[in-house]
Amino acid sequence: MSTRGMVILRCVCAAAMLALATTTFAADDELLWRQVDPDNLVFVELTEGRVVVELNPMFAPATVKQFRKLVRDKFYEGLAFYRVIDGFVAQGGDGSDLGQMSAVPLIDAEFEREWSEDLPYVPVQENDLFAPETGFIEGFAVGRDPKSGSVWLTHCPGVVAMARNEAADSSRTDFYIVIGQAPRYLDRNMNVFGRVIDGMEVVQRIARGDAGNNGLFSDETATTRIRHMMLASDISEEERPAAYVPDTDSKGFAALLEGRRNRTQAFFHHKPPEVLDVCQVPMAGRMTK
Amino acid sequence: MSTRGMVILRCVCAAAMLALATTTFAADDELLWRQVDPDNLVFVELTEGRVVVELNPMFAPATVKQFRKLVRDKFYEGLAFYRVIDGFVAQGGDGSDLGQMSAVPLIDAEFEREWSEDLPYVPVQENDLFAPETGFIEGFAVGRDPKSGSVWLTHCPGVVAMARNEAADSSRTDFYIVIGQAPRYLDRNMNVFGRVIDGMEVVQRIARGDAGNNGLFSDETATTRIRHMMLASDISEEERPAAYVPDTDSKGFAALLEGRRNRTQAFFHHKPPEVLDVCQVPMAGRMTK
Repeated sequence: MSTRGMVILRCVCAAAMLALATTTFAADDELLWRQVDPDNLVFVELTEGRVVVELNPMFAPATVKQFRKLVRDKFYEGLAFYRVIDGFVAQGGDGSDLGQMSAVPLIDAEFEREWSEDLPYVPVQENDLFAPETGFIEGFAVGRDPKSGSVWLTHCPGVVAMARNEAADSSRTDFYIVIGQAPRYLDRNMNVFGRVIDGMEVVQRIARGDAGNNGLFSDETATTRIRHMMLASDISEEERPAAYVPDTDSKGFAALLEGRRNRTQAFFHHKPPEVLDVCQVPMAGRMTK
Repeated sequence: MSTRGMVILRCVCAAAMLALATTTFAADDELLWRQVDPDNLVFVELTEGRVVVELNPMFAPATVKQFRKLVRDKFYEGLAFYRVIDGFVAQGGDGSDLGQMSAVPLIDAEFEREWSEDLPYVPVQENDLFAPETGFIEGFAVGRDPKSGSVWLTHCPGVVAMARNEAADSSRTDFYIVIGQAPRYLDRNMNVFGRVIDGMEVVQRIARGDAGNNGLFSDETATTRIRHMMLASDISEEERPAAYVPDTDSKGFAALLEGRRNRTQAFFHHKPPEVLDVCQVPMAGRMTK
């Protein structure tokens, strides 16, 4: 389904802990990194800097198809993040979600997909607040319900999803990026189609709107704008930056999860419960440039 | 224990929902706002803007006492956020946490406190991943263990806590602000002593350090600096901005929690589980200037 060039980089547990409580792994538990398929890699140039998004056609094929087309049509260039609520979402696009006219077709709901035994599922947690089970599939945090046989992308920080109106099939162009504590109540209700793998610190600099007006701006000139969007596969191979993300199928990733679930360091005077929030696993990628 | 000037402001559910799915409350469920005691109110002027912190002497009396003294001594002025990890924490201070010499006394551990029936506890959730129960006490998110009889401030985004080395009693001056998905595994392990009530969008602009080096900076000039810190009670009454935070003891707050726990709007084609993450409740305050 995707090009899976593998590369081994040393696992530096950058985001793992405060001060002394870092974890080290044995060599055979080394974290592997997966190269992101250039067809699923989007560079978003904001006035604040570059953001890199990985698309997920496995969970949202129709949304990804439309988004790729909009990117290639330069649809988003010059548009603003027009609804930005600190701790929640930064929403950008042409404002068709606000009821403005748009010639862009609507997208069918793809809120979840059918479970299949051959999905490369890495379990994280049972008894999560919002899902019977959580885990990862090819780098994306997922929720899973074995009873209903469905699986879905969870609303973790950095997730990219289509906004919509009340109707399930009313997504079109406007998208949001989660910038705060995971709003998991939106799971299974939105077309989640990607995640930020680099530049979340840039996303966090997107100007916030008026908290008293649902994050909208009274002054349009105060918004952060999208300068360019480009699909990596539309850039020549020599000029194209490559993106690597933690390979959630590797032994090293399993060891990382276990180290976060079961914290045995002397730093912890109160040993935390042996649980793990799927949205609190550091998943930042690495770019070659 | 604290000055509790009450004021009624209209509840605008700014951070509550996407698009159409806002909640409205009946008039008698109106959210009340509590004025923050000026002795517990700190203005932190960064190179990026103003951040407002509410201190919590109820849970961390020794830490608050030392922090107030350091603020009054202008200890933090000019110091940097020297360890900043996107999605985790921004840590600032004199670097004594890194082993540098410091004449400032150490602070005893105050990771949790004894439960008491007269605490103004507002329950949110049982069966949270990291605590038998969660709730709020005077605006602060807490975890609670009825069996051990203890209660503690939880690591939600915006929480302010003292860094430390391995020993429990090794906090001193360096503090961190949580800037990402709640690192709840740190609960009951750190001196949490405050929360950001205004300016989280400023906190999110703090420059990130080197992800490959545990968030430290290779170039010190790239750090965000603390320009001033000032206790509100040290500012004359006429010049002092007042801060209001959602009054978690009000009926309106209970209604807000219920609206977030039980989402009945037509927007939700899949009704979310009737649960509520205590760290996903919008708690931003309001300033008079």
